[in-house]
Amino acid sequence: MRGFFGPEGTFTHQALLTLGNGPAVAFPTVARALDAVRSGDVSASLVPIENSIEGGVTATLDYLALLDSPLQIAKEVVIPVSFDLCVRPGTTFNDIKRIISHPHAVAQVRGWLDAQLPDAVVVERGSTAGAAQAVADPTTGYDAAICAKVAADLYGLASLASNISDNEQAATRFVLVTKPGPSPKRTGYDKTTLVAYMRQDQPGALLEILQQLASRGVNLCRVESRPTKKILGDYCFSIDAEGHVSDARVAEALMGLHRVCKRVVFLGSYPRADGKEPKVPYGGRDSDYQAALDWLRQVSPEIPRLPYDRT
Amino acid sequence: MRGFFGPEGTFTHQALLTLGNGPAVAFPTVARALDAVRSGDVSASLVPIENSIEGGVTATLDYLALLDSPLQIAKEVVIPVSFDLCVRPGTTFNDIKRIISHPHAVAQVRGWLDAQLPDAVVVERGSTAGAAQAVADPTTGYDAAICAKVAADLYGLASLASNISDNEQAATRFVLVTKPGPSPKRTGYDKTTLVAYMRQDQPGALLEILQQLASRGVNLCRVESRPTKKILGDYCFSIDAEGHVSDARVAEALMGLHRVCKRVVFLGSYPRADGKEPKVPYGGRDSDYQAALDWLRQVSPEIPRLPYDRT
Amino acid sequence: MRGFFGPEGTFTHQALLTLGNGPAVAFPTVARALDAVRSGDVSASLVPIENSIEGGVTATLDYLALLDSPLQIAKEVVIPVSFDLCVRPGTTFNDIKRIISHPHAVAQVRGWLDAQLPDAVVVERGSTAGAAQAVADPTTGYDAAICAKVAADLYGLASLASNISDNEQAATRFVLVTKPGPSPKRTGYDKTTLVAYMRQDQPGALLEILQQLASRGVNLCRVESRPTKKILGDYCFSIDAEGHVSDARVAEALMGLHRVCKRVVFLGSYPRADGKEPKVPYGGRDSDYQAALDWLRQVSPEIPRLPYDRT
Amino acid sequence: MRGFFGPEGTFTHQALLTLGNGPAVAFPTVARALDAVRSGDVSASLVPIENSIEGGVTATLDYLALLDSPLQIAKEVVIPVSFDLCVRPGTTFNDIKRIISHPHAVAQVRGWLDAQLPDAVVVERGSTAGAAQAVADPTTGYDAAICAKVAADLYGLASLASNISDNEQAATRFVLVTKPGPSPKRTGYDKTTLVAYMRQDQPGALLEILQQLASRGVNLCRVESRPTKKILGDYCFSIDAEGHVSDARVAEALMGLHRVCKRVVFLGSYPRADGKEPKVPYGGRDSDYQAALDWLRQVSPEIPRLPYDRT
Repeated sequence: MRGFFGPEGTFTHQALLTLGNGPAVAFPTVARALDAVRSGDVSASLVPIENSIEGGVTATLDYLALLDSPLQIAKEVVIPVSFDLCVRPGTTFNDIKRIISHPHAVAQVRGWLDAQLPDAVVVERGSTAGAAQAVADPTTGYDAAICAKVAADLYGLASLASNISDNEQAATRFVLVTKPGPSPKRTGYDKTTLVAYMRQDQPGALLEILQQLASRGVNLCRVESRPTKKILGDYCFSIDAEGHVSDARVAEALMGLHRVCKRVVFLGSYPRADGKEPKVPYGGRDSDYQAALDWLRQVSPEIPRLPYDRT
Repeated sequence: MRGFFGPEGTFTHQALLTLGNGPAVAFPTVARALDAVRSGDVSASLVPIENSIEGGVTATLDYLALLDSPLQIAKEVVIPVSFDLCVRPGTTFNDIKRIISHPHAVAQVRGWLDAQLPDAVVVERGSTAGAAQAVADPTTGYDAAICAKVAADLYGLASLASNISDNEQAATRFVLVTKPGPSPKRTGYDKTTLVAYMRQDQPGALLEILQQLASRGVNLCRVESRPTKKILGDYCFSIDAEGHVSDARVAEALMGLHRVCKRVVFLGSYPRADGKEPKVPYGGRDSDYQAALDWLRQVSPEIPRLPYDRT
Repeated sequence: MRGFFGPEGTFTHQALLTLGNGPAVAFPTVARALDAVRSGDVSASLVPIENSIEGGVTATLDYLALLDSPLQIAKEVVIPVSFDLCVRPGTTFNDIKRIISHPHAVAQVRGWLDAQLPDAVVVERGSTAGAAQAVADPTTGYDAAICAKVAADLYGLASLASNISDNEQAATRFVLVTKPGPSPKRTGYDKTTLVAYMRQDQPGALLEILQQLASRGVNLCRVESRPTKKILGDYCFSIDAEGHVSDARVAEALMGLHRVCKRVVFLGSYPRADGKEPKVPYGGRDSDYQAALDWLRQVSPEIPRLPYDRT
Repeated sequence: MRGFFGPEGTFTHQALLTLGNGPAVAFPTVARALDAVRSGDVSASLVPIENSIEGGVTATLDYLALLDSPLQIAKEVVIPVSFDLCVRPGTTFNDIKRIISHPHAVAQVRGWLDAQLPDAVVVERGSTAGAAQAVADPTTGYDAAICAKVAADLYGLASLASNISDNEQAATRFVLVTKPGPSPKRTGYDKTTLVAYMRQDQPGALLEILQQLASRGVNLCRVESRPTKKILGDYCFSIDAEGHVSDARVAEALMGLHRVCKRVVFLGSYPRADGKEPKVPYGGRDSDYQAALDWLRQVSPEIPRLPYDRT
């Protein structure tokens, strides 16, 4: 059984369906979806981690990492933010007088609405899925919902117009979260997520973290300073790095961070949704690490085995 | 006339009131609130920039900086995220059967609700202000709203319970945005916001940016990598740095960034809401810059005037 | 009147002659040659600064910088280390039974001697010039000297074989030292010499120094850690950097060093003997500094004049 | 059989005697002393590596590292530069009319001579040992030599005045060089010498090298840029680092250098003559490396053995 940040009919639900059609349970908050993983009620939960429409990013990053029982990311899913104008079957464009949606969704299709339906009244609802549900019930008096395609399917609506967002490039990113355990196998286009807590509010803290990564040849996909919420002015860094924990450069960088930081939370290595291979700088491949070890053993025979020694 | 990201009765509205009681106009989106500054319809707009409840952060950061006409931050306001349980005057605790609020607000008071009102039905609405408005109308059938205090005042509701958030430390940050112009005077506890675009997707890009700041003694309050939305994998860095553009260290660091980056967008120097003074490292005060200049002039008489030369 | 590290007939003397034929006085040590500049007895002195044959490097670096009255480098001269086999006129190759030279010179021509004059007896003398002088006097019993060409000329010897060093690429570097004053004009292929003293024996001291230089786009030609001789384990860094003090990047880097170091000794900007132009990294030209200033003034009108502002 | 850079009676000889009284052979140049190690003619040779009096530093650094068969440092010896005024037994202070010594030695005792023997004639010789030898022979006409104590002993001279150097803090450093092999055991106050060749004349080359060391917590004792003598402008870095190759931080740093450099020459780990323990920064001890590995294995069970894993 898998969980997700609901309700049904949202983009998270739509992302979940890209992972297959098994049974799934919706949770009203990201925190509850993640707690259900911790308690064992579900084997994994899908939650948004970068999503300008439905929120949840901050909650997800913090709730994954801050607690005593961190979880682990097993997979990421990225889907475009794409809104449809959905109606009860039979409704035509000219019938549309009252539209319902979430305010953020309305904001994203404002240009399209101004051009296509300038006279329609727009009413707010707490989720786009709830808007679809309201339209499905003719007694509510709404003619159309701006919602995800999955919500239309769920509530038996028809799409009159697809992909009506003013910005066509917006995308949302979701992660499938499990209990800690072995990471998925290295694919060659992996990402590793971690949170590093500094020992104190050091001016050069982030520089030191970045040098631990750079000196091993590990590039970053994302970095964000975040307050730790314990002491004012105390902060940590949420980082997505290129590569897999079983890449020599990533393993060594993680250990380097562990040595110099107050705490490092490893949130998993997993394939990138975009399949983009990392740019490994000079000297950063596993074979470079192996060659360095071979050399060191030759010039200094007393050095024992290393983790990236696959001979 | 000032603008703000509305509707009335939200936390942004509440933050606006801390700036005085002049006339103000609500805008339905951050983008519209900012466009009104650009067009001159309002002299300034207050918009959220770090706000886990009402969103808007991402939109604000991007819409401030990405366009051809960047705006400037003149002031920041931080207020605690504090929800009240608000009712029509006369309603008592025992009368409460149906509660209405925004789903994110509900998520933040879930623990309190489970303990105090376990049997109440909770209904969602697109904003906490809209929830208060609904409660004000007895015909809607809602007994209580979870909303900001300002919304209760606006719609004539009474607060039955204050500050009911499960996490008492959540805060939201807002910025008052104006057209570009001279920054507010240096106070000694200032912050400078900027966006730096790298020349290309360089692995060491962030390190280079941080070294431009660190070598001048400028500390960071916040750093975030953000996609530029033009090319996939292209990103920029959104940064809050300690200090004011008229501090020698900040001026020199900004020029350093301008030299090594593709583009730097200066979003203003302004007093910190928390009044916290910067930790200036050894050699980072204006007097250190002046002493360095005096020394250089002495050993090399041909060097002309410098910006931090106040003699 | 110019001074030089003597005696006459050494490579330093030979280097001096490349600067013209004015009157010159030889000093027995580098320290005395430099003290004569300080006292005003000579206007300038030529001393070796990188010279594996006659020593003096360490003495020069330290004696230029460590004292309360640092001096300044006005020019550098580089000449190849080239030994000749010199004899009294009339002596032929087959006459050579006894050779005299300085031990270091003998070491540098050992291969040539073993091949050409395997049976000659080699006697040591304290300088190659002294060896030439001894050969000039037939009563000393020496047939040949291994010395610089200038020594042969000085003592009326003839060269039987030129450039007999085993390593043909050895070169020595000399500097013409004056009292502090304006540096020679920028040529576009200049070098700046300085000594930076750290505030304490900091592990990252050199890194901090290099970042002050790198963040302004200044490259290094030479760097050497050197004990300060005051406290055991206390050290300073002797540095040759590319560029002239009137280059914006060098001026700013020098001031940055002055801010973060305990002490910086500026030893002059002067043309490189090899005429090699610096590799100026992205953003490091004067025009980049000017553009950065223009930009900063535009976004923040209160910034006053800068040293590299030539408009 | 051990070799040393001779002749007998020099400071190198004196340093050799601190290592015990076994049979030893003097070589006329550092290169020959080192070649004898390579050929197996001697098991080890003692050569100066930091010595302002007798030269040899540059030759030693280069000849140890540049060739195809690098050697290894097994031990370092530091002795103070201390000159004595030595005479044939029976000679008194008032008898001294003619003094002989190496010019560099004369330079170092000039102040003492001016004060004590202002009227004595000073004659130069190619080595201080040769000067002592000359004084031992009454027919040469010299009354006193300025030389090392060991030279006086060797040639049967008596010391009339000890430690007459103007600068009492000068010291010379020697290294005992062997064929490559296992390093001496870690003592806790060790030093590691290496030469790093950059991939090209990169502006940030030294910064990159230092970051490889700093990110592992390895401090430097000495760093020097040196021309490689192959291509003009091509250089390498000669480095003494704190710690032993079997310290986890040093092993990892050496491998890091090997990955990013064109070539790294390991010249040995050996006890420091001064017995000074390294300042190991936060996270740099072996136990920190072990803890980092334990942590990584716990969060990512697939990581195999590491060299510093002593469990």
